[in-house]
Amino acid sequence: MKRVAILGSTGSIGVQALDVVGRFPDRFEVVGLAAGRNAPRLLEQIRRFRPRVVSVCDEAAARAVRAEAPPGTEVLSGEAGAVAVASHPDAAFVLAAISGGAGLRSTAAAIEAGKPVGLANKESMVLAGELLMARAAAKGVAILPVDSEHSAIHQSLVGHNRGEVRRLILTASGGPLRCTPAAELAAVTPERALKHPNWSMGDKITIDSATLMNKGLEVIEARWLFGVEQQRIDIVVHPESVVHSMVEYVDGSIVAQLGISDMRGPISYAMGHPERMPLDLPPLDLGRLGKLTFEPPDPARFPAYTLAYRALELGGTAPAVLSGADEAAVAAFLARRCSFTQIADVCADVLEAHVVEPVRSVEQALAASEHGRREAEKRVGALAHAPAGR
Amino acid sequence: MKRVAILGSTGSIGVQALDVVGRFPDRFEVVGLAAGRNAPRLLEQIRRFRPRVVSVCDEAAARAVRAEAPPGTEVLSGEAGAVAVASHPDAAFVLAAISGGAGLRSTAAAIEAGKPVGLANKESMVLAGELLMARAAAKGVAILPVDSEHSAIHQSLVGHNRGEVRRLILTASGGPLRCTPAAELAAVTPERALKHPNWSMGDKITIDSATLMNKGLEVIEARWLFGVEQQRIDIVVHPESVVHSMVEYVDGSIVAQLGISDMRGPISYAMGHPERMPLDLPPLDLGRLGKLTFEPPDPARFPAYTLAYRALELGGTAPAVLSGADEAAVAAFLARRCSFTQIADVCADVLEAHVVEPVRSVEQALAASEHGRREAEKRVGALAHAPAGR
Repeated sequence: MKRVAILGSTGSIGVQALDVVGRFPDRFEVVGLAAGRNAPRLLEQIRRFRPRVVSVCDEAAARAVRAEAPPGTEVLSGEAGAVAVASHPDAAFVLAAISGGAGLRSTAAAIEAGKPVGLANKESMVLAGELLMARAAAKGVAILPVDSEHSAIHQSLVGHNRGEVRRLILTASGGPLRCTPAAELAAVTPERALKHPNWSMGDKITIDSATLMNKGLEVIEARWLFGVEQQRIDIVVHPESVVHSMVEYVDGSIVAQLGISDMRGPISYAMGHPERMPLDLPPLDLGRLGKLTFEPPDPARFPAYTLAYRALELGGTAPAVLSGADEAAVAAFLARRCSFTQIADVCADVLEAHVVEPVRSVEQALAASEHGRREAEKRVGALAHAPAGR
Repeated sequence: MKRVAILGSTGSIGVQALDVVGRFPDRFEVVGLAAGRNAPRLLEQIRRFRPRVVSVCDEAAARAVRAEAPPGTEVLSGEAGAVAVASHPDAAFVLAAISGGAGLRSTAAAIEAGKPVGLANKESMVLAGELLMARAAAKGVAILPVDSEHSAIHQSLVGHNRGEVRRLILTASGGPLRCTPAAELAAVTPERALKHPNWSMGDKITIDSATLMNKGLEVIEARWLFGVEQQRIDIVVHPESVVHSMVEYVDGSIVAQLGISDMRGPISYAMGHPERMPLDLPPLDLGRLGKLTFEPPDPARFPAYTLAYRALELGGTAPAVLSGADEAAVAAFLARRCSFTQIADVCADVLEAHVVEPVRSVEQALAASEHGRREAEKRVGALAHAPAGR
């Protein structure tokens, strides 16, 4: 029986993680849940999984949950609450699935408490990957990726010699605008950019998928998770999203992980590790699928991913600044305050203007991200260009 | 420094293995070579790699080699010679690359002598897989596959739990007749069937590739090499031969190995194991390649592979009989004594008429194969049908 805490339990990953838990009641026990504002869904989860402790975004939401939760359920709130869930003494595994920079402190708390972490919170690695990996190493804590790409790389690395890796190859769906000509990109509306072909995800990550910034952030994540420098991390566009990612070894051999597009695969892999669970998902039938296609990414139309390489080159706080700038720029695009192509422009401006410092603490990483956000906001405010969709 | 013996050194696999040895002179030393009739090529190899012992097919060839070999080179002959090379006390690794049933005794000798074996001789597993794997287990000997498909499966299994394998998926190029309509198959000439799209191999294996019998024999090989029953071994046709094979796990996740079509990949993987060697081969560039296609195999046009499943179901000597029958039928097809479609017909007849016995010795496996060959010969002789190309 593995006792788990799930941070971000009412989000997409959290809900699917609890689906996995529900399928294997003899393997998992839910010790704690941390959610945001969705009290009704959290209450359902509390009734079904009976955690000892839960946390919500603020005290008002906590009061609402306390009023209806079964007696004996400890209800906390705020970031301190999420941190308490993450470091609960009874938790033997923490799934870190709070999205955005908001997930960083609780991820860090789980590591400091010596808990193995299933990491679905990309920003933890983007903002403070080097720091967190050093802390995890010091604590002897395993960090198991939950992103489908990084889970694929993990599955393609186990049993092989790390010293023999030539490069990591992240696959990218190419997003909803993969075939859109360069001339049309500036006029793309949020509605169009939100139509992801393969994965149903939140708005921020779907736009990041359309700009390929998401793939850039995954390059940063891979750089720290697997200790492979960015010069040896490549991206290949693969619209079917069947090959989830690959590792090339020094002899030219490539090991890849393939599967259907269902996040319960990587979630259950991380949760069950080192055991796999017999998920009752439809098998991947390549014979029926017929074909898999691949193409190089196009930096002329989708320059955002190249900024991630640049941020890694700059080092220190640069990836955090880029991440914050992207959050603000994507929000501005969704609010029709900037155009699709201006997302990358704004991020590039902020990144190049930033004076890099080493990341010595989680607080500093968060401050750098916040700085990036503010700087991007400023630039969006100053845009002369009439944005699309107005 | 790994001391190696190479059985079948003048054949395609042997030559490529020596190419690998030549690239890494600080890693490998050639202790012994066993060849057939190609004395000139063997002499070149002797001069370059300075083995202590070599063997050729017969005493006449041995005399020719002795006359020109550098002093101190021991020159043996016949199967006893190959067996002596395979079990040479100084060899720490044996590459078994003699083709056909002729390779079985020397493979078995290497195992009995406790040498790790790189297995390129498919027939060893087809004729006596259960027996040899039991002997290898008893001797604590590793058998490392050199077929690209089985090497891919090996690379997709390392580090994962064997108990969590749901199925093995062997890829098949589909061979030169993949798109040939059923009605045209009976009239296919040896010339046409010998045009393999991806691999340059010997005639027998190229015809086996056209009938898909080769894939069936690989199913038998996989069944014993990896201890997975045939019900859980699938075939998918993949004309590009880029995905070399795959393993599906209980959670639906598929791990695959990909690479260019160059046998030096799997050869060096087996020879270097557990280390990979930095081969200077062109990398696989999926972005440039563009697409990979897959289709189910067609048992109506290519029934030969289904006979391998049937032979495993029958058990005991049945796979050996099938292998022998196929050798004779392919030879008859190449000699225009039977049609392309009659290869599978003859094999099916021989297989179903065979009275199965357990395989208790290498001799018995060889006798069963010889029996299959004779029975197939008889049936070819009795064919009323006017074969193609006459």
